[in-house]
Amino acid sequence: MTDMHNTTGATPDYHRLMLETGARARDAARELARAGTAAKNEALRTLAQSLREGREAVQRANALDLDRARAAQYKESFVDRLTVTDAVLEGMAQGCEQIASLADPVGEISDVHVQPSGIAVGRMRVPLGVVGIIYESRPNVTIDAAALTIKSGNAVILRGGSEAFETNRVLGEFVRRALASAGLPADAVMTAPTPDRAFVSEMIRARGLVDVIIPRGGKGLIARLREECRIEMIHHLDGICHTYVDAAADLDMALSVVDNAKTQRFSPCNATETLLVHQAVLEAFLPRIGAVFAQKGVEMRCDAASLAVLSRAGINACAAAPEDWDTEYNAPIISIAAVDSLDAAIDFIARHGSHHTDAIITNDYTAAQRFLREVDSGSVMINCSTRLADGYEYGLGAEIGISTGKLHARGPVGLEGLTSLKYIVTGHGEGRH
Amino acid sequence: MTDMHNTTGATPDYHRLMLETGARARDAARELARAGTAAKNEALRTLAQSLREGREAVQRANALDLDRARAAQYKESFVDRLTVTDAVLEGMAQGCEQIASLADPVGEISDVHVQPSGIAVGRMRVPLGVVGIIYESRPNVTIDAAALTIKSGNAVILRGGSEAFETNRVLGEFVRRALASAGLPADAVMTAPTPDRAFVSEMIRARGLVDVIIPRGGKGLIARLREECRIEMIHHLDGICHTYVDAAADLDMALSVVDNAKTQRFSPCNATETLLVHQAVLEAFLPRIGAVFAQKGVEMRCDAASLAVLSRAGINACAAAPEDWDTEYNAPIISIAAVDSLDAAIDFIARHGSHHTDAIITNDYTAAQRFLREVDSGSVMINCSTRLADGYEYGLGAEIGISTGKLHARGPVGLEGLTSLKYIVTGHGEGRH
Repeated sequence: MTDMHNTTGATPDYHRLMLETGARARDAARELARAGTAAKNEALRTLAQSLREGREAVQRANALDLDRARAAQYKESFVDRLTVTDAVLEGMAQGCEQIASLADPVGEISDVHVQPSGIAVGRMRVPLGVVGIIYESRPNVTIDAAALTIKSGNAVILRGGSEAFETNRVLGEFVRRALASAGLPADAVMTAPTPDRAFVSEMIRARGLVDVIIPRGGKGLIARLREECRIEMIHHLDGICHTYVDAAADLDMALSVVDNAKTQRFSPCNATETLLVHQAVLEAFLPRIGAVFAQKGVEMRCDAASLAVLSRAGINACAAAPEDWDTEYNAPIISIAAVDSLDAAIDFIARHGSHHTDAIITNDYTAAQRFLREVDSGSVMINCSTRLADGYEYGLGAEIGISTGKLHARGPVGLEGLTSLKYIVTGHGEGRH
Repeated sequence: MTDMHNTTGATPDYHRLMLETGARARDAARELARAGTAAKNEALRTLAQSLREGREAVQRANALDLDRARAAQYKESFVDRLTVTDAVLEGMAQGCEQIASLADPVGEISDVHVQPSGIAVGRMRVPLGVVGIIYESRPNVTIDAAALTIKSGNAVILRGGSEAFETNRVLGEFVRRALASAGLPADAVMTAPTPDRAFVSEMIRARGLVDVIIPRGGKGLIARLREECRIEMIHHLDGICHTYVDAAADLDMALSVVDNAKTQRFSPCNATETLLVHQAVLEAFLPRIGAVFAQKGVEMRCDAASLAVLSRAGINACAAAPEDWDTEYNAPIISIAAVDSLDAAIDFIARHGSHHTDAIITNDYTAAQRFLREVDSGSVMINCSTRLADGYEYGLGAEIGISTGKLHARGPVGLEGLTSLKYIVTGHGEGRH
């Protein structure tokens, strides 16, 4: 995609731009790290109010982006995501108010124990520093991400999609004014000074200026960043989620949970993509869920055993190709396989899953406990829908994304994931012997 | 440094070697993740015993490495580090027994809260998977790292210094036999199949096979890995530690703590490299600690104000060059600067520190609290020696290293740092609405 904005002919010095942006964020990060909870909450509530009052200014800027996108013949679904309606704006405002109402994670002290030497050793939760967020077209991420990073005491550099540049710039100004009005450094929230992609390349290599990169976007973006990024990332790769219906499942419950996990919405990353069914309940269960899927227009891609059962029941399905087991559909398609044991189900998930969210439906205590312990995913569930893997459903109050990594933060990432624990040590003159 | 071992002329297929090594570790990791605490402890205690009984076999292998190192004219200090004396071997054995006596972190459940939907959401501590450890000459790391990864339920690929290849190979065999004797998979501990450096290049790019890389070595190694590694790292960069003597310090305590922080041992990363002294106590304190340093042969590199005070007291010191403030000496050298406020001290540490360990000596409550909160280091200390930043002193029981990163694990990293928290969710058929 060519860049729509860099039409002046002059090439900005992106390295210098990043150094300037990063240095301002770095200085502001130190100030925000020690900011009081009341000031941070005041900034968030002021921001909510100013978004409501400044609706017209936001929508004027948004109209510029929309005109450009239409002129460039972007798809209507893309233009929809780019549009800041009244409802989108109100959602942003309410998000700020909700984050203001959450407990402040910063400064929390835990695990203080006195050691034999006499020192007391504990841990304090502290901000990460400067967070770089790289995202695509939806402008509401600008406000969500800013609010989460402010509350967690971090500075942030926001690099939204170039197609939303004008909207994001104006939203960024609202945030900066709200910070200043609460006595906090405006530079704690920086928007990328240019929509050019070359700025991203600088940002993901600005070690010492940026402490963590959080990409929110498609797999292409993440794959590129995994090669090029020289800064630690909290990222979401694939959402290949499984639901396993065990031999000892309550089949009525399985029916309702699997239906929800697949069909409540098709596009989210936590929708189930693969259904595993124990052989012992294949005949009893598969035609029932198959009828639901058929009625809702969900295409079923099956292994031989499950295809045979569905065919005998007169339900339309097809054979899965090998790559189906490793595919995130985000669509009304499900792959279905029969397994002959709990071990086979756990093995299958280990081979084909993406460490995102996997569920078992069972009334067998040992099977439930083994699944919980042995499945290596960000969220492991018993008897409920994978669609519940979400920061709000988990009581985090908000979420910056869902991590499929194994270090630092797994699963939905809220305020806590934007902080880390440092050791705090208090003594009375102790030294090492 | 040329490689001493790859003299056959044939070039191994390093990519294939890594795939094979990684696949075996990956399979074993799943088994070790679900292993019981008793079996893991049995393996560790068996290992301790077998190291004592197998002393001669270890030392025979070690003699081969020592002969090669001497023939290659390595420095005597290098050969010393490579040597497995009886005492070194007994230290390894005791380390295993100590790690066996620690609580098992795996499977620990915390923070379970019922949500409005009816689901209960909590967290379970789980192993990271396959850990890759890259280290230099000391062969005791082989046993320490193997013991820590076994106890934390991880598989490990150990790539020690090529100069210790024979020693590490034999130590690795002891570990593998101990695992097997406890009914655990021997492949949970793999030693690099070749001493060639090309294997490291494959290892640090083997995403999907290795979950985290932990380098233990000099800055050259870390710098190279930061550019080339495509896997998340837990790493230690610099140890530029500060001790700040505040205006309200107990100067007797300051004298003993600063002395300990600098001179108890010079080479460790947690030794203080820079002393900051508040102007108000510069005259009263600096000549006292200066006399101690002079007597112990510690070179003092000073800013103008502190140099003037030391000179007037007749203590030999020199002017610091700008790069001194950013230098980790690991030697009997200290840089000294006067500051005119707590803020100036905190600023100084933010500019020149390495996020490792920094201490304040003070009796001022507010100064202590501000320092604790605002200094952004893995360990922040009040009234004690930076030399105490250590897994054993912190009660972790053991340590795999000290992290200067800001994500996942900060400061000394013990068993907990080799695990992460996944979400566990239990329901009764709940779906998303």
